[in-house]
Amino acid sequence: MASAGKKKTGPARSERAKHVTKKLVKLGFTVLEEIQKGRNPKVLIPQRLLSNVYFNTRRSIIELGNDRQARSFFNVGMSKKFMQTFLVAQACKQLLNEGKTTSIRDLYYMVKHTIADSKVNTFEDQPESDSILEDLEVAIDSLREELNLFASNRGAIVGNVTLVDSGDTIDCRRMGSGGYSVPSIVEPDIVEITKIDADFILLVEKDAVWRRLNEDRFWEDYNCILIHGGGMPPRGVRRLIHRFVNEAKLDLYVFVDNDPWGYYIYSVVKQGSINLAYESIRMAVPKARFVGLSSFDRERFKLPEDDKLRLTDEDLRRARQIRDYAWFQKKPWQKEIQKMLDNGMKFEIEVLSGKRISFVTEDYLPYKFKHKEEMLD
Amino acid sequence: MASAGKKKTGPARSERAKHVTKKLVKLGFTVLEEIQKGRNPKVLIPQRLLSNVYFNTRRSIIELGNDRQARSFFNVGMSKKFMQTFLVAQACKQLLNEGKTTSIRDLYYMVKHTIADSKVNTFEDQPESDSILEDLEVAIDSLREELNLFASNRGAIVGNVTLVDSGDTIDCRRMGSGGYSVPSIVEPDIVEITKIDADFILLVEKDAVWRRLNEDRFWEDYNCILIHGGGMPPRGVRRLIHRFVNEAKLDLYVFVDNDPWGYYIYSVVKQGSINLAYESIRMAVPKARFVGLSSFDRERFKLPEDDKLRLTDEDLRRARQIRDYAWFQKKPWQKEIQKMLDNGMKFEIEVLSGKRISFVTEDYLPYKFKHKEEMLD
Repeated sequence: MASAGKKKTGPARSERAKHVTKKLVKLGFTVLEEIQKGRNPKVLIPQRLLSNVYFNTRRSIIELGNDRQARSFFNVGMSKKFMQTFLVAQACKQLLNEGKTTSIRDLYYMVKHTIADSKVNTFEDQPESDSILEDLEVAIDSLREELNLFASNRGAIVGNVTLVDSGDTIDCRRMGSGGYSVPSIVEPDIVEITKIDADFILLVEKDAVWRRLNEDRFWEDYNCILIHGGGMPPRGVRRLIHRFVNEAKLDLYVFVDNDPWGYYIYSVVKQGSINLAYESIRMAVPKARFVGLSSFDRERFKLPEDDKLRLTDEDLRRARQIRDYAWFQKKPWQKEIQKMLDNGMKFEIEVLSGKRISFVTEDYLPYKFKHKEEMLD
Repeated sequence: MASAGKKKTGPARSERAKHVTKKLVKLGFTVLEEIQKGRNPKVLIPQRLLSNVYFNTRRSIIELGNDRQARSFFNVGMSKKFMQTFLVAQACKQLLNEGKTTSIRDLYYMVKHTIADSKVNTFEDQPESDSILEDLEVAIDSLREELNLFASNRGAIVGNVTLVDSGDTIDCRRMGSGGYSVPSIVEPDIVEITKIDADFILLVEKDAVWRRLNEDRFWEDYNCILIHGGGMPPRGVRRLIHRFVNEAKLDLYVFVDNDPWGYYIYSVVKQGSINLAYESIRMAVPKARFVGLSSFDRERFKLPEDDKLRLTDEDLRRARQIRDYAWFQKKPWQKEIQKMLDNGMKFEIEVLSGKRISFVTEDYLPYKFKHKEEMLD
């Protein structure tokens, strides 16, 4: 039933695909050359270890250092990983060639097979192929999305921006109560940003709060882009925000619960994460600012309290850990976290509904944007 | 900054809102009358207990029976619940009056407070208000969405259908790779179905598979609506599907993993669930059919196996439990479940990618739709 001229939703053989394919091919040829020279072939992989992760204070992002490990073929401990690296590289090259995208779960099934005349599997489980994929990403300095691999499809967007996704124009001003579902791969050859009238982006942790703000047309009144990620924003949401900030010079405000998880979400959006330090450069937004909930909002807005929301031991541990991070050393942040510990309580954004349904839209956020100087940075 | 004439995204004071408000008001007046007559005021609540749930074989859905419990005010064990019922009813009436929607988490904060001159809270935690809300839903025979309460905002849609969401026209044929994010409340006054050219709906369990099918333009080739719910479809997705099926007489096919959870998703979509039996009538789609993965697909498509995906003890227990459900008693289903037990394995849809990236679009589903007579019902 497929018609020859039909529209494609996946990426075409774009400049990006060509560029990344070149890097994969180069990786292959480097190894081939070594083989032809009779040497032990090897791949250099930047080390994804805590010892090789540091906070770049100038750029204000968490980055990977320069330590590399040589993964060579003639080495009992490395031989299998060497093979796996090329199986994953080959699968990615195939995806790029065919202009198709897939999930990392699919990738696992693509590269997994039993080696002929043996009972040995190329991969035993998905964590193995996930880890090799991360190696490949750092080795050729490309995000998995650039290799046509996607993560989960969470998050939605409304607001003063027009996108073109796979040829379809998406006017986010006219997306009703549901919004445009942010795809996992938002590289420029798939999602093009064509028109932005907005002054800033408001990233909301929770979809319920996003819905409240959309219903109250907050984005229209404040001329912004309203986006949520259903908890920790998935890669697609982070990458799209990064593009808005860098291509259209928008500001970014992060709206999360007043608990250690909220701080952590803010910190990942702003500086990147330790585990995925190599991606910070294309995902982190150092100029992100924090619109709360802040621990000081408890008194500022006389928030109703909930005994059920006392900080747990785990919360206390996490809060203290976050307080020690290099990127939380600014005085206002130290005060903020100390105040949470002193409160002994956490507060969800929803607590504002205890005051009035639209308190968040009509009182809370207007206060915050009127007192930008108080916002944590 | 709010302008008087600005567009609203939430529900207007629709006919639905008026109708539901009337039911709430009636509930209040019934109690008032009893008070005026000097009687012990009470509310009749249909019982949401397993003993009052049965499978309606004629309609082929799971329903609530006729048992009711009187919740009266002058009764030590019921007095608090009686008060809570009216606090929740009052909050819902307020939402309907203001034309605003909110989450059940917000509802909890709306109704929670400390009773004056006491240390007693109206509600201790959200499960308490959730349970009272369910009571209210059955008592006045309205879905929570009709009371302007929403659940999570998961799921996305593309395909041959046009919707109007809060005044914005959403052409699901032109939603790129991301799709239209299905809102939690899809009642006709918020989401209107204006044009359907599709022959059927394909509901996919996993967003990754949905993305593959969208990229391959399956919905164009097969003239259908392609929807996913990110796992167990949330209420918004189920309700929208229910409307497509009933308003446009579409068929529904459910595409899930070959494991007990997949069977369960199918069963909830088709017959409703035991816990929420009172909703089946407006959520369940008895004519849903199962496109797999079936346990017989293992041999039919020579699926690659994965030792990591042996059925666990929990899987075995669930599979046997499902086999005993009244609504799985048809012979083909008994064979299907027995075959899973015999296989001792589960299979994810992604396993098809082990054969070829687009195997699912180009081979698997075409086979299934060509052999509809083999599809489980």
